[in-house]
Amino acid sequence: MGGDFGPAVTVPAALQALESNSQLNLLLVGNPDAITPLLAKADFDQRSRLQIIPAQSVIASDARPSHAVRNSRGSSMRIALELVKEGRAQACVSAGNTGALMGLSKLLLKPLDGIERPALVTMLPHQMRGKTVVLDLGANVDCDSDMLVQFAIMGSVLAEELLGLSQPRVALLNIGEEETKGPEPIRSAAAVLAALPAIQYIGYLEANELLTGKTDVLVCDGFVGNVTLKTMEGVVRMFLSLLKSQSEGKKRAWWLILLKHWLQKSLQRRFSHLNPDQYNGACLLGLRGTVIKSHGAANQRAFEVAIEQAVQAVRRQIPERIASRLKSVLPKSD
Amino acid sequence: MGGDFGPAVTVPAALQALESNSQLNLLLVGNPDAITPLLAKADFDQRSRLQIIPAQSVIASDARPSHAVRNSRGSSMRIALELVKEGRAQACVSAGNTGALMGLSKLLLKPLDGIERPALVTMLPHQMRGKTVVLDLGANVDCDSDMLVQFAIMGSVLAEELLGLSQPRVALLNIGEEETKGPEPIRSAAAVLAALPAIQYIGYLEANELLTGKTDVLVCDGFVGNVTLKTMEGVVRMFLSLLKSQSEGKKRAWWLILLKHWLQKSLQRRFSHLNPDQYNGACLLGLRGTVIKSHGAANQRAFEVAIEQAVQAVRRQIPERIASRLKSVLPKSD
Repeated sequence: MGGDFGPAVTVPAALQALESNSQLNLLLVGNPDAITPLLAKADFDQRSRLQIIPAQSVIASDARPSHAVRNSRGSSMRIALELVKEGRAQACVSAGNTGALMGLSKLLLKPLDGIERPALVTMLPHQMRGKTVVLDLGANVDCDSDMLVQFAIMGSVLAEELLGLSQPRVALLNIGEEETKGPEPIRSAAAVLAALPAIQYIGYLEANELLTGKTDVLVCDGFVGNVTLKTMEGVVRMFLSLLKSQSEGKKRAWWLILLKHWLQKSLQRRFSHLNPDQYNGACLLGLRGTVIKSHGAANQRAFEVAIEQAVQAVRRQIPERIASRLKSVLPKSD
Repeated sequence: MGGDFGPAVTVPAALQALESNSQLNLLLVGNPDAITPLLAKADFDQRSRLQIIPAQSVIASDARPSHAVRNSRGSSMRIALELVKEGRAQACVSAGNTGALMGLSKLLLKPLDGIERPALVTMLPHQMRGKTVVLDLGANVDCDSDMLVQFAIMGSVLAEELLGLSQPRVALLNIGEEETKGPEPIRSAAAVLAALPAIQYIGYLEANELLTGKTDVLVCDGFVGNVTLKTMEGVVRMFLSLLKSQSEGKKRAWWLILLKHWLQKSLQRRFSHLNPDQYNGACLLGLRGTVIKSHGAANQRAFEVAIEQAVQAVRRQIPERIASRLKSVLPKSD
């Protein structure tokens, strides 16, 4: 029910995901009256792997998270997470209120031992055609050094599992490469990470290196991560729109216009892996279950990508692997 | 002497600036043995408006700022700032250690009444072909709400003076548009700004709107500002390099290659106003004097732009105008 467009985007995306993945089963949690009409185009096979779970209410996207969590009973978001808790679903995908999703997930699915707060993580495509695991993207506005260290460990496991790297490089996002730079939590986390043999810590990385592929895992607090991701998205979208709008303006010969058009298409293809729609779906990492947060403004293709992220996380048993890694790296918490 | 390339970039840039601006006089502060050979190409007119001020030492770019400030006597950076303090120069331009420049500027030139800490500010080109004043870009890693409010006032004056706007729109950078979003200092600053009649406060802006021109002034703490700017630079540089490298790869007919080349040039021109070299030079705002910080990695063209920024700030009497505005907006400090 969540996101800027609600079922109008999420339901068609769900049908497409069912078509692309014959092993997928989906539970659509929400208002049946809003969902059912959108299933008209579903074929028999899609319908057989799809079930509507009725929910009476929807958490508003602008609701204060603490308030939303307190009043969440019967909401689509809460019911979806309860399905994961009860083992009736392996993962929850939502385009709804990030703070509420974070709060409810923590409440219902519980953080793993050794994790104070879950983090939102995504894999950003970089210049070298690989990917960089970036976290936290907005789940935690303020982070102490312990949290940053926990994020680094979780990110490292994710890079191993999803990117197939044996010793992922881990960096902290900072405003300079020198040890003395940046706020205290980052400097403390750097000292801890440098001493952890399980982590290949490579130091600070500045934000202009974000897309260069110099690191496999990039760690920062949720405020900075969110701003960084959105800055990048803004610039990329602006470039893509400028490329599209190239043809306007001066009059040219028809063959020149055609050629220009062709060049634009080729440029757009070249940049397409950087299009924010292609990597939608941030995983809420550090819980005893898989929760994927889609961008609220996601279109159908982008929401489908978020569903695929959930499939990947479940297949790779990300929560279980992080839990076992934490046990070996961190001293057991009280 | 500062920056990644030292006099090899700054001296040719200085000569070019003298050629472009016949009213400019420059004092080159540093090691005469390093500077003099680079003046070989200067003509009589350039030499007559140029003077070398010898300095014995250079503050290292990786020096800890507090240490650098304590041991700054005789350094090129300190001498340059002393020239401003003594009125022998109207502005100082440096590509050196940001923290040291900030500390020494504050020590020698003193903040204006009502300003706790100066802020680094720049004007970013946006999609609508205008500019957005953004501050702080890295002078202050941690900012309380008072500082954010002071930045907003200074940014507003700058937008009036340098962008010619009568009522500049002022926004706070945040991770959502709702009032409840983000860390406490930002929410407090929002409440203060909304109540200041002298400021046209328009609310929170998310980072993906950075280049859309929705605000004239964007305020954030120095850590976030620095990360945002560098993220943007990284993405823009990647795009420009991808545009350049388009021709490589498949073999094509010569006329097709020529045409493609021409189209690429046209695209590059279209994006050129976003090239970080075109807006190099952040002004250290809030001091009783003009100090411009150039990017350490600035090339000759970029450093020349930084010198032009200094000329603009002096012509527009930015420090004086901010001082008088602060008097009218803020209650006099003790």
